[in-house]
This record gives sequence, C-alpha cells and structure tokens, in this order.
Amino acid sequence: MMKKWVSAAVVGIALLGGGASYAAEIELKLAHTWPKGFPLFGTSVDDYAALVSELSDGRITIEVDSRNKHKSAFGIFDFVKSGQYDIGQSASYYYGGKDPDTLFFTTMPFGMTAAEQTAWFYEGGGLELANEVYAKHGVEVMPGGNTGMQMGGWFRKEINSVDDLKGLKMRIPGFGGKVMAGVGAVPTNIPAGELFQALERGTIDALEWVGPSLDLRMGFHKVAPYYYSGWHEPSTELMYFFNAEKLASLPVWAQSVLRNAAKLTAYNMSTETFDASATNWSQISQEYPDVQVKQFPSEVIEALRASNASLIEAEVARSELAARIVASQQAYLEKARAWTKIGDKLFLDSVSE
Amino acid sequence: MMKKWVSAAVVGIALLGGGASYAAEIELKLAHTWPKGFPLFGTSVDDYAALVSELSDGRITIEVDSRNKHKSAFGIFDFVKSGQYDIGQSASYYYGGKDPDTLFFTTMPFGMTAAEQTAWFYEGGGLELANEVYAKHGVEVMPGGNTGMQMGGWFRKEINSVDDLKGLKMRIPGFGGKVMAGVGAVPTNIPAGELFQALERGTIDALEWVGPSLDLRMGFHKVAPYYYSGWHEPSTELMYFFNAEKLASLPVWAQSVLRNAAKLTAYNMSTETFDASATNWSQISQEYPDVQVKQFPSEVIEALRASNASLIEAEVARSELAARIVASQQAYLEKARAWTKIGDKLFLDSVSE
Repeated sequence: MMKKWVSAAVVGIALLGGGASYAAEIELKLAHTWPKGFPLFGTSVDDYAALVSELSDGRITIEVDSRNKHKSAFGIFDFVKSGQYDIGQSASYYYGGKDPDTLFFTTMPFGMTAAEQTAWFYEGGGLELANEVYAKHGVEVMPGGNTGMQMGGWFRKEINSVDDLKGLKMRIPGFGGKVMAGVGAVPTNIPAGELFQALERGTIDALEWVGPSLDLRMGFHKVAPYYYSGWHEPSTELMYFFNAEKLASLPVWAQSVLRNAAKLTAYNMSTETFDASATNWSQISQEYPDVQVKQFPSEVIEALRASNASLIEAEVARSELAARIVASQQAYLEKARAWTKIGDKLFLDSVSE
Repeated sequence: MMKKWVSAAVVGIALLGGGASYAAEIELKLAHTWPKGFPLFGTSVDDYAALVSELSDGRITIEVDSRNKHKSAFGIFDFVKSGQYDIGQSASYYYGGKDPDTLFFTTMPFGMTAAEQTAWFYEGGGLELANEVYAKHGVEVMPGGNTGMQMGGWFRKEINSVDDLKGLKMRIPGFGGKVMAGVGAVPTNIPAGELFQALERGTIDALEWVGPSLDLRMGFHKVAPYYYSGWHEPSTELMYFFNAEKLASLPVWAQSVLRNAAKLTAYNMSTETFDASATNWSQISQEYPDVQVKQFPSEVIEALRASNASLIEAEVARSELAARIVASQQAYLEKARAWTKIGDKLFLDSVSE
C-alpha cells in the first residue's frame, strides 16, 4: 500500500510542474472487475495508471473505473471489445460464456505453477495463443498479475476418501467446480458477503477463496479448521485487455509504455501477493494454532485428476484452437516441471528434512 | 534472442522518425561484467538499453560497454562509484573486497528461493538494506535478474558421505567455496575457458557453474555424470548500479524510466533463464540419458549447513549493519518458507507421487 501512495505523490509533483515537460496527449479509460480499493487485484490497477503517467512524463493519463462506478464486474471483455473502455483488467476465465477458448489463460487444475506459467506466457508461446483467441474479438491481452498457488480451501471436516466428497456442498466456481462435481461434490455459488456465515452455519461444508493473501480478511479460519493444499488453481493470473484498434492507433512509444507498464505491474502484483500470503499465513498460524494444513489423500488426488482429464478431453474435442492450446500447455508443463523438480523442489526437499 | 531483435527493430523505427517526437536529451554510459553478447546476463543489458529508449520515446539513450570494451570484468563497482560510467550491471557479491556487506545481495547458501528473495527485496526491506550499504559509496542499486536455483554442480564421482568431500578439488568460488572448505573440500579457481578440460582430465573432481540455462553450452555433462541439486546459490540475482548523484540530477520521469526499466528487465531475464533451464535440461536429459541427478545425503547437507552457519556467525560479529541484514534475511526466510511449503511445495508433492 505504501508504494501506491509514493507513486501517487511522485505523479502529483510531476503534474504540478516539478518535473513535467508535457501536457497529457493521450487520455485513456480503464475498467476493472473489482470493488474500488480491493487489495492487490484492484490497487494494482491504480498503480498501473500511476506508473504509466510517471513513465510517460505525464503524456499518457488513465482514468480508472472500478465496479463501483461501471456496475458490471464481468462486463470488462465487452467494454473493451466495444471500445466503451480502452483498457480493462479482469480474469480471462470469467469470459468462457463469450468465447470458451478464453478459459485457458488464467490457470488450469493440476497445471503450471506461477513460475512455469509465466515462462509459458512469455517464452513458450502462451501469450501468442491468448492473442490468437482475443484477436477474433478485436482485443489484445497481457498477463495482469498472479496470486501464486491458490489453496484447496477451508473445510469443516477432514477429507479421508473420495466418499467424503460425495454430496459435499462447496463454494468452488468455474472449472474447478466442474472437476469437483465430477467426483460427486456439489459446487454452490454464494455471494462473497454471505460466505462466512454460510460456512459458519454449515449451509456449505467447504469453500475455496484465494490463499492467505486474501483469505485472512474473510475470517474463514475461525470456523473451518482444515486448510487443504492447492490443486485447482495453481497460478491464477489476472489479465489486461486492450482495445486493439485503439492501441494500434497510438505512437510506438506509447504502445510500449502501455504494454511494458502492464507487464511490470503484473510482476509487482505477483510479488506483493507472495509477500501478503507469507505475512498473512504467519498471522493465521500464530493466532489460530488449531488450523491444520492438510493434503488430500492420493486416492482423492487421483480421482480429481481423472475428472479433470475427462473435462480437458471434451475441450480438446471442441475446437482445433482449443486442442492446440492444451497441447502447448501440456508440452510446456512437462518440460518446465522437470526443471522445477531438479531445481527448486530438490532444494526444498533437502532443507525440509 | 528473438525478443532482443524485435526491440532493436522497434527502436530503429522510432529513431528513424516513424514515431519519434524527441531527440535524445539524456545520454548515459553503462558497463557490464560479461563478454559481449553473453547469453542472458549480457543480452539482457542490451535489452535494457533498448527498453529505456523505447519507453522514453528516444529521449534517453544508453551506450552499453561489455568487458570486451572496458577490459575490467570486476571493475563495475568502481566505474559507477567514480562516475566513469553512469550505470553498471554485475553481481553484488563480486565486490566483497570493496565492502564486505555487498556479499548479502546476490544469494546466500541455504537461503531464499528466487520467489522468496524477490519478495524480500521489494516487500521485505531487502532493497532498502542494499541501498543502505551502497549509499556509503554514492551508488544506488536495483536487482538485475535471477538465474533461479543454481545446481550443486557436476561431479565425476558420487558423494555418499562427508568423507567423500575431504580433499575433493572443486571449482566453486565465493562464499559457497568457503562453506565447502569448511567441510574439507579444496576450492580451486580456474578460468572459464579451461574448465571443461580440467574436469575431463581430472585436474578437478567437480565444479559448479550455473544451471542448465548456461551449463549446456559448457559441455560438462559429457565428462561428469552426476548433477547434484542446489544448495549454495538458490537464487542468484544480478544487480544494476547507478551513480546516485547522476541519477538524482535527472528529471523525475527519467529516473522512473531508468529504475522501472531495470526492474522489468530483471524480470524478463529471470523468465528467459527459467525457460532456458527447462529447455536445456530437456536436451541434456534426452541426449545424455546416463546423466544422473543426485541429492547429497542428509549427513552432507547437515555438515554444509553447519559450516555455513559458522561463517554467517562471523559475518554477524563483523558489523552492526551485517547483523541487521542477516537478521532481516533470516526472519523473511522463515516467514516466506512457511508459505512456500504449504503453497507450491505441497502441490508439487501431491502431483509428484
């Protein structure tokens, strides 16, 4: 948070004449999915606007509208496609109803970690595939920041077998919810503001939210003592959307500022979220020593993987482009995971004994 | 490599008038440690200069000198301190002879992983501590790109006990070498160009270089079949050095471009290196199936940790600032590692069985 205010102060000085040489030449409008000031996901967009202003010496300004203003959390894709907004920030997988191929560019169950997926986007052809999907809609995209590993969620009871998942009422939206349904669980959707009470009263048996970075403020650890390790969203990446025609109409330097500032802001958000996860997990584990971190038994993991594989198979059959995206992800995952295993994982194993 | 040429092309267009509105107002000189065109470490500096030119619409230009030009690989600190160059790129731990407190800002044996250390630099007070050290020399620093986990090195024979390390001749420079000496090994230094032959002929028994990203081209896998997992440099971070007086004399927007482009270039280099490690490890393991990845037995790890701990203890006793840096690193490592363990590590464990 401090960083945000420092940036704002620097921009303030520039606009007041301390170092500004140019008036705004390019004025853009941006809409994002989150409530105003929403930690990390929303504040990073304010940081983006400040960074663009700073880097451009005030020549580019971005007006940021949160959902408090535009009233349409999941309208970002349409806003940018239509040109109502020049830029958007949201998550790609929210727009599966508009184009099912947008599903693949946030995170996939049992998929790549943040380091692996970032390399896939920038060095392994992932971003080119994303832009092949979005170009059909007149939109260009860039990764928007990663939450890192999302936890498997807060459970009121231990899960010791696949049978324990049958009929389990769990808030888990999207593709992960479909995977859970495939093993007999009952995914439910409940507004964020009612989740704590639903979990406390047993209206639901479990829920997943994000990870310690954003779970702490929700208080779930006070009413559900089992915190399961991640599997359904190993590297949730937000996304910047640009109206392609508008972006292409700008001078080369301005396009470079807008794209590179998005990349840097995404990196900053990822780093801030890692720190928030570490800090908040430290607080939860110290203040609530009864919270237990659990892993699903291998029987459950295998059942979830099988459910996921059959859903992916259906996606592959759906379109040639979907098949190419899945093939690219699977090939990169295999290559990158071999490195993760002999690199970071063996190190962590050797110092964890 | 492709990215570099794309960037150069874009800059070329800008300079030729396609989109350029301003002539160069700020001309800076940069010196780095590596040979001209050295993969990742060197090419990322060329990318930095191109990015600064692009973002500034040609208002800032940076002339990059490799060691082929300035002839002093480890003179970067002095070049920037004296103002002979405005900017430098090198590794902090090369300058322990100038100021022993520079040791801590590259990587530490058994220390943080890349994700953990990045969060420490930007969110955990690490960069502030680095700049407290460097401010005494009139220098401001920024992280310069991370190699990720460095492997423990290539060994001609298996290491099954601490006794196997006694008298072992190994190329392992710096702090890691001191740790190895503490358990009875004999660290030796041999110029890069002679390393392959020394390992092949048995002049040395083992060596560490970087990891698959840069090891492949050295060919060590052809003559030493045991590739040990990492411990001595879990997240080697390069560093940008700025002459502080020169930087402060520039307009606010130009300072922002120079600092933020450094941060983004460091991120890009880290991502490119992750990809190169994954790609090169795939090639080594396919073409040389006899190469075996090994872990030191826990007896060896414990001996190395004890040797490291006594060296760190001596550093802590050396100065109040060193003690504060070590305390900050240890506290952040503890907090961040707890998150790494319940996040990425439990996920990797659950899908690796």
